[in-house]
Amino acid sequence: MHSDEEQIRLLTQTWMAATKAGDVNTVLGLMTEDVIFLVPGRPPMRKSEFAAALSAQSGQAPPKIDGNSDIQEIIVNGDWAFMWTKLTIVATPPGGGASIKRAGHTLTVLKKESGKWLLARDANLLTLVPASEG
Amino acid sequence: MHSDEEQIRLLTQTWMAATKAGDVNTVLGLMTEDVIFLVPGRPPMRKSEFAAALSAQSGQAPPKIDGNSDIQEIIVNGDWAFMWTKLTIVATPPGGGASIKRAGHTLTVLKKESGKWLLARDANLLTLVPASEG
Repeated sequence: MHSDEEQIRLLTQTWMAATKAGDVNTVLGLMTEDVIFLVPGRPPMRKSEFAAALSAQSGQAPPKIDGNSDIQEIIVNGDWAFMWTKLTIVATPPGGGASIKRAGHTLTVLKKESGKWLLARDANLLTLVPASEG
Repeated sequence: MHSDEEQIRLLTQTWMAATKAGDVNTVLGLMTEDVIFLVPGRPPMRKSEFAAALSAQSGQAPPKIDGNSDIQEIIVNGDWAFMWTKLTIVATPPGGGASIKRAGHTLTVLKKESGKWLLARDANLLTLVPASEG
């Protein structure tokens, strides 16, 4: 029996592993139906748009995604929680093009539904890391 | 007697009004002692750093700040809440230089301490709006 905080850490690990594996269905199963993704410079993205963005990649050879999520804080309050992390994502295009590294923080609201923690609202503050600083 | 949601809306209005007025002490009184501000491309900022950044401006004529916070959602759960907004900030330098407009979203975690709602964690996703689109 894992504590709520442990379950949220496992959710984060599963999310990262499924993203690296290109396992779209697993990633979509880790978020609420009404999830909202906020990123700089773009309109809010809902689950259907998140799924469409992932599926659009599936026709072509996807980039290889690697990354590291360093959880800074988790606070649980009943069936809601929030977390912020220091996140690095490295995307390498197929065929050996130059990798693109993005780094920064995330602030995430999580919700427990039917005993399972899910990502509900997410602010992604990552910015491009110039290759010289990578 | 205002509901929690009404109190959070009033907090947001007070924050915007105090920012416009350059009233640093009021703004600092609207956040927890352990507040964390997350923005793209910079390390997390704590209350002392937030205060220092505001105070650094106080020796010189400050820019005129105007803005609009359009609350998209508030969810309250006991003494914690979260909110996301669509925010526009326009800063005009003293002496009539060109205004700088930034727009985007915020995701904020709020905490009720001694009956008063305070800003506790804040992700600010605003990006520069080119003058041609302003």
